[in-house]
Amino acid sequence: MSNLFIHSVEITGSFWKKYQKIAVENIIPYQEKAIKDQIKGIEPSHAVANFINAGKKLAGRKDYADFYGMVFQDSDVAKWIEAASFSLAKYPDEKLAARIDELIELVAKAQESDGYLDTYFTLKRPDQKWKNLHDAHELYCAGHFIEAGVAHYEVTGKTNLFEIVCRLADCIYEHFITQKHEGYPGHPEIELALLKLFRSTDNAKYAELAKHFIDVRGVAPDFYTKEMQSRSWNVWGSESVDPRYHQCHEPVRKQTTAEGHAVRAGYLFTAMADLAFETKDAELFAACKNLWKNITQKRMYVTGGIGSTNQGEAFTVDYDLPNDTAYSETCAAISLMMFARQMLRNEKLGEYGDIMEQALYNTVLAGMQLDGRRFFYVNPLEAVPGISGVAVTHRHDLPERPGWYGCACCPPNVARTISDIADYAWQLSGETLFNVLFLDNKIDLSGYGLKITEKTEYPYNGRITFEIEKSEAAKAVTTLAVRLPKWAKNAEWQSEFDAQTKDGFIYFNLGRKPFAKKTITVELNLKPRKIYCNSSVYSNSGKVCFAFGPLIYCAEETDNGSLFDLFVLRKCRPEILAYTDELCGIRKMKIAAVKIKAGTEELYFEAEPETEQTEMTLIPYYAWANRGLNQMRVWLPQY
Amino acid sequence: MSNLFIHSVEITGSFWKKYQKIAVENIIPYQEKAIKDQIKGIEPSHAVANFINAGKKLAGRKDYADFYGMVFQDSDVAKWIEAASFSLAKYPDEKLAARIDELIELVAKAQESDGYLDTYFTLKRPDQKWKNLHDAHELYCAGHFIEAGVAHYEVTGKTNLFEIVCRLADCIYEHFITQKHEGYPGHPEIELALLKLFRSTDNAKYAELAKHFIDVRGVAPDFYTKEMQSRSWNVWGSESVDPRYHQCHEPVRKQTTAEGHAVRAGYLFTAMADLAFETKDAELFAACKNLWKNITQKRMYVTGGIGSTNQGEAFTVDYDLPNDTAYSETCAAISLMMFARQMLRNEKLGEYGDIMEQALYNTVLAGMQLDGRRFFYVNPLEAVPGISGVAVTHRHDLPERPGWYGCACCPPNVARTISDIADYAWQLSGETLFNVLFLDNKIDLSGYGLKITEKTEYPYNGRITFEIEKSEAAKAVTTLAVRLPKWAKNAEWQSEFDAQTKDGFIYFNLGRKPFAKKTITVELNLKPRKIYCNSSVYSNSGKVCFAFGPLIYCAEETDNGSLFDLFVLRKCRPEILAYTDELCGIRKMKIAAVKIKAGTEELYFEAEPETEQTEMTLIPYYAWANRGLNQMRVWLPQY
Repeated sequence: MSNLFIHSVEITGSFWKKYQKIAVENIIPYQEKAIKDQIKGIEPSHAVANFINAGKKLAGRKDYADFYGMVFQDSDVAKWIEAASFSLAKYPDEKLAARIDELIELVAKAQESDGYLDTYFTLKRPDQKWKNLHDAHELYCAGHFIEAGVAHYEVTGKTNLFEIVCRLADCIYEHFITQKHEGYPGHPEIELALLKLFRSTDNAKYAELAKHFIDVRGVAPDFYTKEMQSRSWNVWGSESVDPRYHQCHEPVRKQTTAEGHAVRAGYLFTAMADLAFETKDAELFAACKNLWKNITQKRMYVTGGIGSTNQGEAFTVDYDLPNDTAYSETCAAISLMMFARQMLRNEKLGEYGDIMEQALYNTVLAGMQLDGRRFFYVNPLEAVPGISGVAVTHRHDLPERPGWYGCACCPPNVARTISDIADYAWQLSGETLFNVLFLDNKIDLSGYGLKITEKTEYPYNGRITFEIEKSEAAKAVTTLAVRLPKWAKNAEWQSEFDAQTKDGFIYFNLGRKPFAKKTITVELNLKPRKIYCNSSVYSNSGKVCFAFGPLIYCAEETDNGSLFDLFVLRKCRPEILAYTDELCGIRKMKIAAVKIKAGTEELYFEAEPETEQTEMTLIPYYAWANRGLNQMRVWLPQY
Repeated sequence: MSNLFIHSVEITGSFWKKYQKIAVENIIPYQEKAIKDQIKGIEPSHAVANFINAGKKLAGRKDYADFYGMVFQDSDVAKWIEAASFSLAKYPDEKLAARIDELIELVAKAQESDGYLDTYFTLKRPDQKWKNLHDAHELYCAGHFIEAGVAHYEVTGKTNLFEIVCRLADCIYEHFITQKHEGYPGHPEIELALLKLFRSTDNAKYAELAKHFIDVRGVAPDFYTKEMQSRSWNVWGSESVDPRYHQCHEPVRKQTTAEGHAVRAGYLFTAMADLAFETKDAELFAACKNLWKNITQKRMYVTGGIGSTNQGEAFTVDYDLPNDTAYSETCAAISLMMFARQMLRNEKLGEYGDIMEQALYNTVLAGMQLDGRRFFYVNPLEAVPGISGVAVTHRHDLPERPGWYGCACCPPNVARTISDIADYAWQLSGETLFNVLFLDNKIDLSGYGLKITEKTEYPYNGRITFEIEKSEAAKAVTTLAVRLPKWAKNAEWQSEFDAQTKDGFIYFNLGRKPFAKKTITVELNLKPRKIYCNSSVYSNSGKVCFAFGPLIYCAEETDNGSLFDLFVLRKCRPEILAYTDELCGIRKMKIAAVKIKAGTEELYFEAEPETEQTEMTLIPYYAWANRGLNQMRVWLPQY
């Protein structure tokens, strides 16, 4: 079983229940209509149509249409099946289940006799399979189908898609391992998917294939150049081959800095950490640690966003974290969550959970409008209407979320992350159950005789209670480890159990004996915090930002007037306000500030601007851009 | 005569003499070697070779080589002749004069029988003349040759090049006016050149042709799209046609914002203002005023730099003036000086001189290493080694001046501007002589019986004396107007003449009668100044910069340690230091500041950084990047 918590956890209320409902009620149905071309006024997807047409072609029919859409259009179908399958775990819906099966039937018909599955090649270039690993996304789409197949199987127990993806993985194994064809995916993804498939099937060849793709990557950094020279076509006109973009500039074990396309990097590093755990590969884990450290200590926004430039949607260099021209793609933050989850399997450091949470509560959630109807791909830390989204250097930094994109990567990625939140929240390692994210939920690990009801108003309140029942069972959980965030300096806890802290976790010794209900209370004692930035990030020089628990706060013009006339008082003590229903329920923050009085029309002037004392109101970053076009700023200059 | 001051002004000492020597001794000889392919280790130019080969081809010989280099390679020869000719005016050099004549002989042989002159087309595409105005730079190169021809004629009195360029202009007139072929230059330049030629020849057809190109521009904004569709070749592969890039999105009289490629825009606006003056075209001048206002009040750096993005080397939107990713091309600042000069001919506002001076003393001079051996094309206001010139978004913002470029536009442009500085410094309008820039110089307007010796240590001292002699003459200068910079709030002056101030000038009434030596002393009382920025430029929010006279100051790491740990005290009073020989002679500035003590390795942290009082030392912006790789910052955050 790849996902232990898919059935055993129920989200019971407050913050995350709301998001799961949005995923089930809005995102997943909308995405289904999109891939089926049932939404008027948006560019057709043809994602499902491509499968129908590939199926017709394979059946020898002549009435099929050509492939339409991006070369990776198939992955939209896979991602939808994955998200929809996760949602079925907690929101059973027979009609939805039936529609998934219908779609799987179309996929089955589009699979070639040897297991090959990719409608772009089946329809458009049947003689060019595996000949453009650089761009053509065959292995990427395969990876998403494998993830979908595993999710669908683990939620529903059905094998209709699972068998398809096993045959697909076998086909890939045949080509790359048995027949020893050179190559590795231009967009990592299949590696982490194959490791999931390995855990679901216990078939070591899938882990072997994942390991192969990881091991050969970057050993010959000119592989893609040669590949390109060996064929006469490209997907996107003339291409350049920058090995850093694809993380193949050197063997992955030698890489010490996070380079290139951030989502590619995040998926690759996730698979590396996963493989390191599965194979006890200390060298590979050491490489993961270096990469983790480089990302989190040199190349990550305070919002948990990564990949600071739109040029290649990529990492740049250490400390280059511009706020206004940030890329910080939603999917890249999700990949950082995935990387953190795998790092935590290897090493029990609370830090991995801290960063996972930082990415989740800030960049990932900011990627979605509060009603789940619009999405940001790009998550700047400073938005200036008139420049953001308009100036040529800021075209990607939209100050408001747009409608559905033609390239629909982020919305389904958010949907599946929210639907699968339990697998981020919990980890079982030996006899210790780790609570990584704090949510209102019930966990019933029946094989272990353990039931826990976790109650909290987190992230707006730091009080977390665990009601625990333990009965006789074949397998034992003897310890509950509760993450102690690094910022929770005044945390306290009460329980009947022995407790000790280590490396960012509080370990409660539950013992081996059964017991009726016992309670642990952890009080993180949330206080608004000021965060400063290393001055090497020159765009934040002299600035401060504000946080409350895992939430990074920002200022919006709507609450404060023009933000560029406002300066935080250096000595201010931020105050957190009571819960309000605004913005779907948040707690605002107040800070003392100074405001420049009456502006001038002049561009440059010599009279020192007059100031007056004022207050600023901040809101959580994830809730920004939900009240119309206005300025936003995370890092605030001081006075 | 186009250039009244070319012979009548002699730069006598201090600041500008040094620069003119650099131009004569370093830039012009180096550039001559470059265009003649006599420098080892740099990409060959072939600029002169192209003329030799075109001449051979036209003479019916078979031993010519193909065209080599950029499509506008011819303009490097023209710019060199122009700069070298200007230098001859004050540094007579018979050998140089002879080498110029030899080069003109080669140009003469490369001119076709109908006057056409462009080696790219003569050698490479003889049947495609005038068919790619969008990119092929024929009219641009012609413009530079016309400027060179006028300069060479006015300095030397020789007509060998002048006759060539008149025939070239006649050929263009024939095509576009007589034969009524549609079109206008993709890169404006010929318009301003034709107006110079008009003044040198008094031949109205050249003004008519300039007016034609200005009038038809943007009337059919899709002209270039149609032109592209009508031919089967492009200069740079697949091109996009963005009419804004070429300032042809609407008729020039309707344009109210400065758009597109900044050098193109600056050259166009210069010609518009020139034409408005020559033809008393109030509507055209009103358009120029709007564009001037938009540039100087919304789209200009405090260094007088324009064109804030490298993407298209272009203007972006109002108030988008990033410091670290600035483009601010040296040539664009020169074009702003040229625009200012023409605006001042139309309207006697000191502001035009103020801006001319701001661009000159900051961006234009910063474009050149102090020894004249290396050049910046791009002039950022913030440089961070490790990011500047390295990160993909900052590749154009080099933190140190590189060697000679293949595309050699800026160095010769700087050379000709410095060599022709007198024509920026003085303007004669009716009977009033305007002193726009302050330099140590002697002017002898013999036809006017006027001799003035101007003495000053400007820009490091605000005392300017004018020793004036006036004798009987056919033409009269009755008034000396000395610019009173807007920032010179405590200026005083002493003289025997009646004086009154108006619109940024002090008008000294010299009267009509001859007199022996009389003196005017103007004391601008230079004090270090703080400059604040409109908060709409969000990158400067909360920051201040420092100036002394026309000089904008900057901080360099060499003097101060890491700049991003330093904050200017809000209440500081900047102090100007005594003259030092460092950096070829400057006055440094001292300001009180606060420094963050002992940094941290962490990316984000919660402990408020400890600070200590300190001082910062600033140097003039033009002198930055002359002491090795280090950080630089113009706008400084406050404490």
